[in-house]
Amino acid sequence: MTANTENSQEVNLQVDYVIHYSFGGTDKLQAIEQLEKLLQSLAKVGLQAEVRQGDEVSLLVFVKASEKHLKRAVYRSRVRDWLYGIRNAEPTRSNSTEPQTEAERLRVIHQMMTLPEEEGGANITPGHGQWKNVSAIFPLHDIETNNKWMREWSKKTFLSEDDLDQIRNKFGESVGFYFSFLQSYFRFLIFPAVFGFSCWFLLGGFSIIYTVVNCLWCIIFVEYWKRQEVDLSCRWETKNVSAVRTKRREFKPEKEVCDQSTGEVHGVFPATKRMQRQLLQIPFALLAAIALGAIIATCFAIEIFISELYNGPLKTYLIFIPTILVSALVPTMSAILSSIATKLNDYENHETSNAYDVALTQKVFVINFITSYLPIFLTAFVYVPFASLIVPYLDVFHLTVRPFVSKEHAISKQSHFQIDPARLRNQVIYFTVTAQIVGFAMETIVPYIKQHALRKYKKYNKERNGKAERSDDKESPERPVVSYDDPAEEVKFLTRVRNEVELSEYDVTDDLREMCIQFGYLALFSPIWPLVPLSFFVNNWVELRSDFFKICMEFRRPVPLRTDTIGPWLDSLGFLSWVGSITSAALVYMFSGNAQHGPNGEPTDIKGWALLLTIFFSEHLYLIVRYAVRAAMARLEPPNSRKERGERYLMRKRYLESTLHAETDDDKDESEGIYIPESSEISRASLEDDARHASLHGVDPADRFWMHQQGWAESAKIGAGIIQAQPVKGAVKKQQ
Amino acid sequence: MTANTENSQEVNLQVDYVIHYSFGGTDKLQAIEQLEKLLQSLAKVGLQAEVRQGDEVSLLVFVKASEKHLKRAVYRSRVRDWLYGIRNAEPTRSNSTEPQTEAERLRVIHQMMTLPEEEGGANITPGHGQWKNVSAIFPLHDIETNNKWMREWSKKTFLSEDDLDQIRNKFGESVGFYFSFLQSYFRFLIFPAVFGFSCWFLLGGFSIIYTVVNCLWCIIFVEYWKRQEVDLSCRWETKNVSAVRTKRREFKPEKEVCDQSTGEVHGVFPATKRMQRQLLQIPFALLAAIALGAIIATCFAIEIFISELYNGPLKTYLIFIPTILVSALVPTMSAILSSIATKLNDYENHETSNAYDVALTQKVFVINFITSYLPIFLTAFVYVPFASLIVPYLDVFHLTVRPFVSKEHAISKQSHFQIDPARLRNQVIYFTVTAQIVGFAMETIVPYIKQHALRKYKKYNKERNGKAERSDDKESPERPVVSYDDPAEEVKFLTRVRNEVELSEYDVTDDLREMCIQFGYLALFSPIWPLVPLSFFVNNWVELRSDFFKICMEFRRPVPLRTDTIGPWLDSLGFLSWVGSITSAALVYMFSGNAQHGPNGEPTDIKGWALLLTIFFSEHLYLIVRYAVRAAMARLEPPNSRKERGERYLMRKRYLESTLHAETDDDKDESEGIYIPESSEISRASLEDDARHASLHGVDPADRFWMHQQGWAESAKIGAGIIQAQPVKGAVKKQQ
Repeated sequence: MTANTENSQEVNLQVDYVIHYSFGGTDKLQAIEQLEKLLQSLAKVGLQAEVRQGDEVSLLVFVKASEKHLKRAVYRSRVRDWLYGIRNAEPTRSNSTEPQTEAERLRVIHQMMTLPEEEGGANITPGHGQWKNVSAIFPLHDIETNNKWMREWSKKTFLSEDDLDQIRNKFGESVGFYFSFLQSYFRFLIFPAVFGFSCWFLLGGFSIIYTVVNCLWCIIFVEYWKRQEVDLSCRWETKNVSAVRTKRREFKPEKEVCDQSTGEVHGVFPATKRMQRQLLQIPFALLAAIALGAIIATCFAIEIFISELYNGPLKTYLIFIPTILVSALVPTMSAILSSIATKLNDYENHETSNAYDVALTQKVFVINFITSYLPIFLTAFVYVPFASLIVPYLDVFHLTVRPFVSKEHAISKQSHFQIDPARLRNQVIYFTVTAQIVGFAMETIVPYIKQHALRKYKKYNKERNGKAERSDDKESPERPVVSYDDPAEEVKFLTRVRNEVELSEYDVTDDLREMCIQFGYLALFSPIWPLVPLSFFVNNWVELRSDFFKICMEFRRPVPLRTDTIGPWLDSLGFLSWVGSITSAALVYMFSGNAQHGPNGEPTDIKGWALLLTIFFSEHLYLIVRYAVRAAMARLEPPNSRKERGERYLMRKRYLESTLHAETDDDKDESEGIYIPESSEISRASLEDDARHASLHGVDPADRFWMHQQGWAESAKIGAGIIQAQPVKGAVKKQQ
Repeated sequence: MTANTENSQEVNLQVDYVIHYSFGGTDKLQAIEQLEKLLQSLAKVGLQAEVRQGDEVSLLVFVKASEKHLKRAVYRSRVRDWLYGIRNAEPTRSNSTEPQTEAERLRVIHQMMTLPEEEGGANITPGHGQWKNVSAIFPLHDIETNNKWMREWSKKTFLSEDDLDQIRNKFGESVGFYFSFLQSYFRFLIFPAVFGFSCWFLLGGFSIIYTVVNCLWCIIFVEYWKRQEVDLSCRWETKNVSAVRTKRREFKPEKEVCDQSTGEVHGVFPATKRMQRQLLQIPFALLAAIALGAIIATCFAIEIFISELYNGPLKTYLIFIPTILVSALVPTMSAILSSIATKLNDYENHETSNAYDVALTQKVFVINFITSYLPIFLTAFVYVPFASLIVPYLDVFHLTVRPFVSKEHAISKQSHFQIDPARLRNQVIYFTVTAQIVGFAMETIVPYIKQHALRKYKKYNKERNGKAERSDDKESPERPVVSYDDPAEEVKFLTRVRNEVELSEYDVTDDLREMCIQFGYLALFSPIWPLVPLSFFVNNWVELRSDFFKICMEFRRPVPLRTDTIGPWLDSLGFLSWVGSITSAALVYMFSGNAQHGPNGEPTDIKGWALLLTIFFSEHLYLIVRYAVRAAMARLEPPNSRKERGERYLMRKRYLESTLHAETDDDKDESEGIYIPESSEISRASLEDDARHASLHGVDPADRFWMHQQGWAESAKIGAGIIQAQPVKGAVKKQQ
């Protein structure tokens, strides 16, 4: 335990976990009974508890682990790790079994509370079964350290490896992996930011050179990160941790099966049935594509109609209609689809939480892919090449508008229609700059303000209610006015805890998804506007800090989770960079070079076969290069991985050597039997002795065969005889 | 040890290995010295030896392991396996340490001979350094069993799982994997054979249905085999065996580096340097493509010229020229390229033999890909679509012919030139039927005849030479006449051993390559002639038997090697099936449907963009389906893998339980401390006591916080108090 972690625990009065126990909905007696059970279970596994009031309908149960029981739990957890190949050396009890990091301490204590009883835990499952009243289990934020880090990081460009280790030590590997990824990504962005800026300055958009470099960069980044994951998982000792799968509580087995080899009964849900259910993903993806596609395409069409065909009154205001529509409808539809996705995922009835997360991520990715990239796809591959074919059909809107405005004013002649060549670029700028800033505001600033306003409002409400009753603690105006019966010295602490209870739980997946989608813009569309990486570079500097701020201020401190990867998002990154090889090639072919556009502003001379050939070559070149980069990356062993391998090797070697020594030791006195003294003379007599011996006992031919020569010296002598007997090359003839 | 293995050893006079020691090149005294060393080394690791004469310039050293030393070596090998995660349970010395199969016995004895001394072996490396005279180490064939199996299998359609296990038990996992693969492939061929026949009968060539089904079949087969590999490696306990990498003797380190974590000095060759060297693969692939492509294209052009343009004299004979040229030049060029590939591979200086094999396989695959598939590619994608453009240029040959024949006779008018639409089909038939039969003859029958003829010739020679000298063993006319000084009862055995010495070493790679190339024809070109799978089905029935015959009769018995995969060929299969999705789509688009060909027999209406679009869709459909099949296969756990997982689980559970028990045992007397007797009353007095206690010792706030409630019962009581104190919902207002 470092000085740091001790400090954090002191500020938090040595509280490891807070259990939020709400008794609002249930009968009081039942609530008391369940509370007793909870406290008893905690005591049984060696956790000390203190109860305080939460709000009107809840209690706060503070939990602290006794050193002795913690040590034991750490030891047990390490043994399990060793059995699953996560640790190399078998832990011994005489070893130090202090948790090495705060995250390990918290993780082990969390295990003590949540593991099933047969594995040595208290089997507390928040919100399930007999633990329905337990609404949350969470550790407390280490405010001082958090503030210190935020201050420090705001002055740095890059986080050091040490900073990342610190994050991991505080928040666990899962959060650590996210920040490491963000940091790697940020660092990797330097090159395309600089290169993109140069290309933009010198070559403008749709430059072949930029596109090729960008694709290559995407490949290298994805493969680099894969390697980095291995490195990190070795550094943080979480290699193979994903092999330890935890069963989902919600898993509904179809039948109970007795495993023949282990003799255990466990619930089984046939894989084929699950696969049939998973086939529903196809209609789901289609539904998502159609629903979202219809909304986006319609709004897009309206926008084009208003901005480029419509000339009637109120144009300045009407132009906002599609934007408002999109902003209102797309998130609504996304939310609906997400809830369908969750239901589908529940229906698929995955056995492990890992499988569940992967499946859900895939579905969420489909929705995000459509909402994020479809607008640009529409502009690039529908609007620009086919506008002159499609625009006439926008007359539909024309009909809608007609009743309200006079005909001749309203619609500009179709022959005047011009494809706006800047539209594509503007759209990309919107998604990669404006939308990023808006996103930042929506996810960090707005919730923060909301949360503070809410607290103020609650306080105000309480003050109004409580004014009549209390007057005893007015001397300290700093201290928040509360209506609970807290010991004076704990008021500040308990207020903070009550605030933390009200926060929501942090899920690293959302942040990873955001980064993944951002990477997609880079891979798919950055040739349109090569400043994209520069914008992301700046954005991600802020992102890293604001995400940390968010975790510290707007969420409960997350329970440390171990992981050895960023999970299915890695596949999404690979997929996006692949699709990027296709879209980039298509974009460059369609828009580069021939600056002279057709009469309507549409690019001339797009030949189907040439476009397809470009895509074909680009994609396969991409695949070949990726193969080569992968092969190359596989050769370069990351430093921590080498270290880990070294340790494993040493461990094996020690063990094998001890085996060998043990053998040679008990050999010393008896093994001489096989060495026949070298000087023993093979006399004719002794050979005849052997022969007689053989015939006497009726030995079988094999034994007879092996009795000719006894000991290696005899064999050597006979061999030498044969060699000597052979005539020298030239002498064969002579002898005859 | 089964009765079977004992039987085999009896026939072989309990000989485990034969070491072929040739002293032809060296000085006699030196040879004797080295022989002594060899025998001494063998004796040191506990191997018994008998020396007999080989031929004029060699000795046969027969090796047998003493039971005690063998047991020890088996134990050591199992410990190593356990450390590397190949075995689940830690082997104990009290366990049976008998080798379980003949293959294990032979493998362990081979390890005793070849492992470095620090790992407990005799460090014998045939042909290297001080072991230059040791030209081969090999076990003896178990002729009776071999013959029995050959007889049995010739009556069966499918080998049973048991048969495959037997092969593995005799020849080791490496050969076992090949036969399992062949068997799976053979079994899988039933479906396309039947389906292909129906399609051929009902729909003819280039049917879309057949093509789609064929592609799907290829995906499923490759993915099935991957799963099957996992299953087999669990069944044969070789999972993770490829993680144990053996260092190549030929590896030349650039510098010696001391590993910081292990403290060992070992040779290092920088990966970047190797990668630079590997870049030579690109020019090599180009060279191979150009060299072989030129030969094939030229011969192809000559053939077209002669068969379709030339009408002069000797046409019936001249028509064979291109075939003869191809048969002579392509294998020569392949051999040259193969030797270049080997040199390149040596130059790449791989550290492990595994990496070396993979790299070599890749290069060999490139050569094979070109020689096998280029002719058909040329016909399908160059000759048919572009013949009318290219054929006029064949006038080059025209010029060559002109001096010999009169002008008007020789060349048919160009306007008469007709593309032969059957050429493509005939070529496919040639490669998938004729060439397979020829291949079978060349690899199995011819060497067998050659070998017998050679033996006869040698015997005849010896008889002529030896007639003068010997007349003592004429009484048994059955016995081969030899000129060596063998004990009478061993003559037959030694003759057999001498015959086996003369055979060459078996390498399973060649057979795997053959199957892989065969699979390629199926994946790439079978839509042309849907009877291809039927032909392969028949061929592979023979192939399986003839390969076994080959191993038994034409090669030395292979040293059992462990493996958990068919290695890089698996990637080749995947690659071929991918390419198949492209070629099949292109073939079907180009040749199906419109039976009406153009005036020259060329297919009309081939549109570039449509062809490319077909390919694009086909390829991506292929990739999506492959992804889905992979995901589905991953769900279905193979039976042996499940069993293995169960064992691992049990092992872990046992260990963890023992940990838990150990703890609770030493807990019994002291752990009560944390349970405060439930009945203890919290009196005001006791609380005040605590408070006084605290103030006396100046306790810090955290300690004070945790001293409020002692034991879970107290906490429960206080919690109950808080819960009770809360007003019932409606009552809040009333209280005020």
